[in-house]
Amino acid sequence: MANIFEVPQPDNNLLKKADQVRLASIKISQTENQNRIKALNLMADYLERNTKKILEANIEDYKKAQNRGISNALLSRLKLSEEKLNSGIDGVRKVGNLADPVNQVQIKRELSKGLILERKTVPIGVIGVIFESRPDAVMQISSLAIRSGNVVMLKGGSEANLTNIAIVNALQEGLYESGLDKNAICLLTSRKDSMSMLNLENFINLIIPRGSNELVKFIQENTRIPVLGHADGICHLFVDNEANLEMALSVALDSKIQYPAACNAIETLLLHKDIAKVFLEKAIPLFDSNDVKLIGDKRSFELGLKYEASLEDWQTEYLDLILSIKIVDDLDEAITHIQRYSSKHTDGIITENSHNANRFMNIVNSAGVFHNCSTRFADGFRYGFGAEVGISTQTLPPRGPVGLEGLVTYKYFLKGDGNIVHDFSSGKAIYTHKDL
Amino acid sequence: MANIFEVPQPDNNLLKKADQVRLASIKISQTENQNRIKALNLMADYLERNTKKILEANIEDYKKAQNRGISNALLSRLKLSEEKLNSGIDGVRKVGNLADPVNQVQIKRELSKGLILERKTVPIGVIGVIFESRPDAVMQISSLAIRSGNVVMLKGGSEANLTNIAIVNALQEGLYESGLDKNAICLLTSRKDSMSMLNLENFINLIIPRGSNELVKFIQENTRIPVLGHADGICHLFVDNEANLEMALSVALDSKIQYPAACNAIETLLLHKDIAKVFLEKAIPLFDSNDVKLIGDKRSFELGLKYEASLEDWQTEYLDLILSIKIVDDLDEAITHIQRYSSKHTDGIITENSHNANRFMNIVNSAGVFHNCSTRFADGFRYGFGAEVGISTQTLPPRGPVGLEGLVTYKYFLKGDGNIVHDFSSGKAIYTHKDL
Repeated sequence: MANIFEVPQPDNNLLKKADQVRLASIKISQTENQNRIKALNLMADYLERNTKKILEANIEDYKKAQNRGISNALLSRLKLSEEKLNSGIDGVRKVGNLADPVNQVQIKRELSKGLILERKTVPIGVIGVIFESRPDAVMQISSLAIRSGNVVMLKGGSEANLTNIAIVNALQEGLYESGLDKNAICLLTSRKDSMSMLNLENFINLIIPRGSNELVKFIQENTRIPVLGHADGICHLFVDNEANLEMALSVALDSKIQYPAACNAIETLLLHKDIAKVFLEKAIPLFDSNDVKLIGDKRSFELGLKYEASLEDWQTEYLDLILSIKIVDDLDEAITHIQRYSSKHTDGIITENSHNANRFMNIVNSAGVFHNCSTRFADGFRYGFGAEVGISTQTLPPRGPVGLEGLVTYKYFLKGDGNIVHDFSSGKAIYTHKDL
Repeated sequence: MANIFEVPQPDNNLLKKADQVRLASIKISQTENQNRIKALNLMADYLERNTKKILEANIEDYKKAQNRGISNALLSRLKLSEEKLNSGIDGVRKVGNLADPVNQVQIKRELSKGLILERKTVPIGVIGVIFESRPDAVMQISSLAIRSGNVVMLKGGSEANLTNIAIVNALQEGLYESGLDKNAICLLTSRKDSMSMLNLENFINLIIPRGSNELVKFIQENTRIPVLGHADGICHLFVDNEANLEMALSVALDSKIQYPAACNAIETLLLHKDIAKVFLEKAIPLFDSNDVKLIGDKRSFELGLKYEASLEDWQTEYLDLILSIKIVDDLDEAITHIQRYSSKHTDGIITENSHNANRFMNIVNSAGVFHNCSTRFADGFRYGFGAEVGISTQTLPPRGPVGLEGLVTYKYFLKGDGNIVHDFSSGKAIYTHKDL
């Protein structure tokens, strides 16, 4: 917020598009569950029919990106194999099978005779999505949005433009055939539009960024629109002095190497001083044989680590086969370290002492607090949500892995027969507050 | 956000206080329901015991404010009569009787054998409260915070400083006697501290502003901390051509005059062109006799209103006995007007046509959509929440009148016996996703 606000104002062309999307949002918000399921099935059908076109567009994008000398990591995310596309199409159908998150009655209450309050879930409205590379994200986020009665304004990385256009065209054909407004999925292709989106607070109700920490941070700091997501994922695992050491080794290894580029992989391992020596004797060769570089504080360096950590290590999300290690005097020092450096994503403890486990889980204020299991379980699919919109590290809900429920809000519907508040202050009417 | 960010950085003294509050927050978050109920009862007891001190402090504040020539409206809000104080104390006890919002299990699910996920409500942490005048707000917001396991940093208007100090001292004595940390309720008294609070994003998890629209807007635009509240309350009532006219008159009058300074009072009345003439024939003398100034668009001006509206009228929250009136061609024009000018607080329709009512309620995207009843019902007490933290006009939850549930968030607790994700990718383990 201390930054100068450099995001350009939307031009007339973008405003016109945004208004079309807004109108599509009003239409889709009034659809029945069956309409939206039908739309998802047709979206999947049209993706299938256009497989060849989409894959060809991707090959074109890929060639251009190679010529422009884009990094290998980005290239591999850009690449859409037939298998990846099919799995994306399958994902669209699966989202169709998830329970309808809209029109769920949360409160139904008689406030007084003839005066009925209902709180029902409703779509959020227009979701802005800004993502890098990964064209499969278009299918995933569009299907989640339509399932929940929302519409999307998408902006992908320019390196995937042709692929994204081909995918969005197919999705729009499906929408159109199902009777929905094809503007419910809108793709922006210029970088200027993507930045101006951040100033569309009168049109866009929620922004979901999918990309690097830098992208997410930039968006969070340059828009008034609520942002669902997280920048850093600095997760910790604390091995207590009453830990089962075999379990600690296995869970620590899994939390680091099972998929090191994931936000729920650990970056720092905290070891109770009483078990540090015996743990490290086994851990050093184990992590070595798995190509994990261990960087330790002074005490663990003295116990045989090859690299010594600097302050920066505790603040770094390596997203790589690197793990920082710190030896702490006790549970409280571990908690204090986590409170200072955790990004409040997921932090775990390994211990056989349930008092210590509960103390850790109650005090550590992260979206996920884990006991005797891998931090890699912090994920919407693994939690059984069927789909994941993103993972939020903020304190207020939605928090942690967010499923479809993150794409709805609620509204209060009050129906009366002429009820006025004056009758209550004059004593003519009374509140009954009876849940129905 | 386009504003230059002029809020001062917190000084060491404030940082020290904030850290004490943070520690108090960790302690209270681990208390049982009974501890917190006991604390509320003792807080009420100590307020009672200190009645004389508090009232004397208020007389002192009041005299000073009079001498400084403060407005009558502010003076009347500053004034704490014995009756107002007693009703505040009664409020503290009532909050004690509300159901515990903390530790509520929202999800309990076996993810796989031996791996149990629980999602439970937890306190938000540290609530920053910035309010003007009204010392009764201290009692209300402090009791709601303690009830829900949170702590508060309070900053009141300087004109009420002595009163606020006397109240907070009494509350802290009650906290202390109940065994809780008295830093759970912390009062800041300098204006500089109040501004610096907005930069305490590492300590404060939520800010609740209580005061003028200008105060709320300033806070929303100058902090990264989530803000619960609303600035404008521009509510509308649309009288459809199929309305019961007697009902329309009665509800319109109640929505305007029952308490015109409230955020849920209407500012604009929209009239279907087919009933405008007959409605206004009765409405003009009725509103006249209740001292309501009617300001109309061209068409209603021609039907006998004395004042003609400018564009500004549709954007103004009068908070007074003034009502703007616009004649529209149909339901859709009414909805379009509301979409443009509503602050998304509460908007209502009067009609006997249920199709029109549903269309209005589904399309209008406000926190409350009302049919055939006064907009003045938009209130936490009237909704049966027992207490109100504030009213939110944002699209995402919490939305509308927010009760105690707005002061909790949730956390995912995952307990295993050494479970690792590798076992699932290798096929050794499977997800069961069984709700318990």
